[in-house]
Amino acid sequence: MKLHGYFRSSAAWRLRIALALKGLRYGDVFVHLRRGEQREPTHLARNPQGLVPVLELDDGTMLTQSLAILEWLEEIHPIPPILPADPIERAKARAVGLAVACEIHPVQNLKVLNRLRRDAGFDDAAVTAWAAQTNADGLAACEAMVADRPGRFLFGSRPTVAEICVVPQLGNARRFGVDVSRFPRLIAAEAAAMEMPAFADAVPGKQPDAE
Amino acid sequence: MKLHGYFRSSAAWRLRIALALKGLRYGDVFVHLRRGEQREPTHLARNPQGLVPVLELDDGTMLTQSLAILEWLEEIHPIPPILPADPIERAKARAVGLAVACEIHPVQNLKVLNRLRRDAGFDDAAVTAWAAQTNADGLAACEAMVADRPGRFLFGSRPTVAEICVVPQLGNARRFGVDVSRFPRLIAAEAAAMEMPAFADAVPGKQPDAE
Repeated sequence: MKLHGYFRSSAAWRLRIALALKGLRYGDVFVHLRRGEQREPTHLARNPQGLVPVLELDDGTMLTQSLAILEWLEEIHPIPPILPADPIERAKARAVGLAVACEIHPVQNLKVLNRLRRDAGFDDAAVTAWAAQTNADGLAACEAMVADRPGRFLFGSRPTVAEICVVPQLGNARRFGVDVSRFPRLIAAEAAAMEMPAFADAVPGKQPDAE
Repeated sequence: MKLHGYFRSSAAWRLRIALALKGLRYGDVFVHLRRGEQREPTHLARNPQGLVPVLELDDGTMLTQSLAILEWLEEIHPIPPILPADPIERAKARAVGLAVACEIHPVQNLKVLNRLRRDAGFDDAAVTAWAAQTNADGLAACEAMVADRPGRFLFGSRPTVAEICVVPQLGNARRFGVDVSRFPRLIAAEAAAMEMPAFADAVPGKQPDAE
């Protein structure tokens, strides 16, 4: 397998974590988002959305959308699981992942920030304020979704899709200057996760394409 | 079960379709988004994100995030399925659903449009142009993802999460004035789906709270 990604993409970061948790080996293909390589014909042939990550299987199949790839990984390589066993708990863990992947990430990604510069005349400070507010509001909602949950992790005795989405988003939030101490339950789960090499080794700064 | 929704919410629309496809009965609770009822304490207690839909189970459990609820429905009420049987096909159908639910819907929903009015000074025309462009670009990517797929539906002989997400988004796109004839494969799948009462009866104009 090959993971087409970018060190700073938090969607690619989710897959780096999940592939490592499941002990799967893969090769890296780097798509430099700041240089616009995601819009080149070679990448659009892999993913018409012009996004990373793309997981290229050995037979050439291209899988896109990080949460769809997480579900595929769970179906094909179920051990160790990244979803709880109980259906209601599965729904709640997925809801936290989707709260990040739908309501936070796309509203503060590079594409939308570039549109705000172009269509709304935002300068650097306005762009950063937009991204910070999106992260702060979205993570506050996530915190409320899990605030009363016991344990080191959010859904049981091991990390799930919830941590796989929350940990990279907390990384983004810090990059935009958000005071993440307002989210103590999320931070505690992040600390537990970061004790695991699958999480610690997936951070952007440790990737070969990091700048 | 009770579905907390709003006639025009395309995320609630997805659940109206799925609940009907699976033959499940439920009561309606209407949350008037234009009047801000989603930000009232009674609704925030159901969903800290302040969004619809929420599926309230008979024991009081509140499930949120439409795609997490679709997965729960599929696990608890697997017949008829709303995902293909083959893992790769499942991943591709989910990717289309996520391409709508992550990359299109949240970037053109009421919350972001209101932020553009407040933070960027957008007037009605600029807001509509933003929403139209988001739908046009996003649906063009979805069209490219499925353009070469045979059959009446996108993934096999029955509608899946792909149609459940694409059909409401096409409704939004038309509302914002997008020329959807540019997406012939999506339109053909929509036409096939709309022959089924589960899709035909779920449109916003047929809901009791429609205005």
